[in-house]
Amino acid sequence: MYLRAVQIPSRLIEAAVDQMATLPGVGRRTALRLVLNMLARDEDRVRDFAEALVAMREGVQACNVCNNPTEEETCNICLNPHRDATTICVVEDVRDLLALESMGEYRGVYHVLGGVISPMDGVGPADLDVDGLVSRAGTVDVKEVILALPASMEGDTTAFYLAKKLTESNVLLTALARGVSVGEALQYADEATLSSSLLNRLPYKG
Amino acid sequence: MYLRAVQIPSRLIEAAVDQMATLPGVGRRTALRLVLNMLARDEDRVRDFAEALVAMREGVQACNVCNNPTEEETCNICLNPHRDATTICVVEDVRDLLALESMGEYRGVYHVLGGVISPMDGVGPADLDVDGLVSRAGTVDVKEVILALPASMEGDTTAFYLAKKLTESNVLLTALARGVSVGEALQYADEATLSSSLLNRLPYKG
Repeated sequence: MYLRAVQIPSRLIEAAVDQMATLPGVGRRTALRLVLNMLARDEDRVRDFAEALVAMREGVQACNVCNNPTEEETCNICLNPHRDATTICVVEDVRDLLALESMGEYRGVYHVLGGVISPMDGVGPADLDVDGLVSRAGTVDVKEVILALPASMEGDTTAFYLAKKLTESNVLLTALARGVSVGEALQYADEATLSSSLLNRLPYKG
Repeated sequence: MYLRAVQIPSRLIEAAVDQMATLPGVGRRTALRLVLNMLARDEDRVRDFAEALVAMREGVQACNVCNNPTEEETCNICLNPHRDATTICVVEDVRDLLALESMGEYRGVYHVLGGVISPMDGVGPADLDVDGLVSRAGTVDVKEVILALPASMEGDTTAFYLAKKLTESNVLLTALARGVSVGEALQYADEATLSSSLLNRLPYKG
């Protein structure tokens, strides 16, 4: 309905809106709303907000084994002796890992790829931690690699690519049962569907 | 569909999500998505983001005349000698001011109330800059006060309250023509409707 460009009077507000608009899914109008909300807060609260983000970025890094974000070198899941280190579940990103973890049934470990192959978005195999996975799967301990990738073109492409890379490894390659409906993001699947898709995982056929 | 609580493994990520979720309209799941987006950025970019917000909050304050956010003591609109200081347009917040400004037709000045009276939200007259408006309207120069408040119960209540407060001032009290459809936020009205509602403003009848 309206196409008016909003003229922001202050350079500092403009800069804050520019930054806020870099968040995924946040347009300039929403960014302005969020920034004006910030402006209405006490200075201390804005500083707390800013410092929480910087502290998080400085204090959290990818686990040196599985890439799960952690404040230590290696994440709690990889360090946990009760987890089954012979089974690696490959996920696109941390939110999928969290979705699987909150189910409370999976006892193996993870490998966070950091994305899926998507030529449209300019994401190629080199942008994902494939080497780390291949090297982990190459160790004598690992028996199974579960591909828990999204049920999409990109997820399938990535699974196909990983399967080829893992042919030399002596591991059983499985994929989540497609109980999760096609096109639905893994992290939004309901518990029962997610649980059954894990239970009914099938040998990967490429 | 899902009711799983997401267990976030890192205290720092948790703190960042808590902060992100304080933004209006941002739930915890969206907050996590935004925080993971931050986590994937270079440290410098996260610092830029954080610093832009803090710099904005520290460097911007309400204009000492009209409450429009400004980096100086008094805002550019109030200082502009080409603006008609005898006409004050009362708006709920800065976004409504920006909407009117981007129309490019209004030559008067503003008064930003900082909200509208809303008992449901716990906003009373004391939370708005009513005294500033009454004191400005009391000066001999001011001829007209335009109530450009939202066409809602809260906007009407606020207009009624202001009208009573301004009875002693020797000003013409007008309100935007209700060309703007009832229930629609002022800032989302299209240019033509907004322009005509300004042109056809009527004497305020309480």
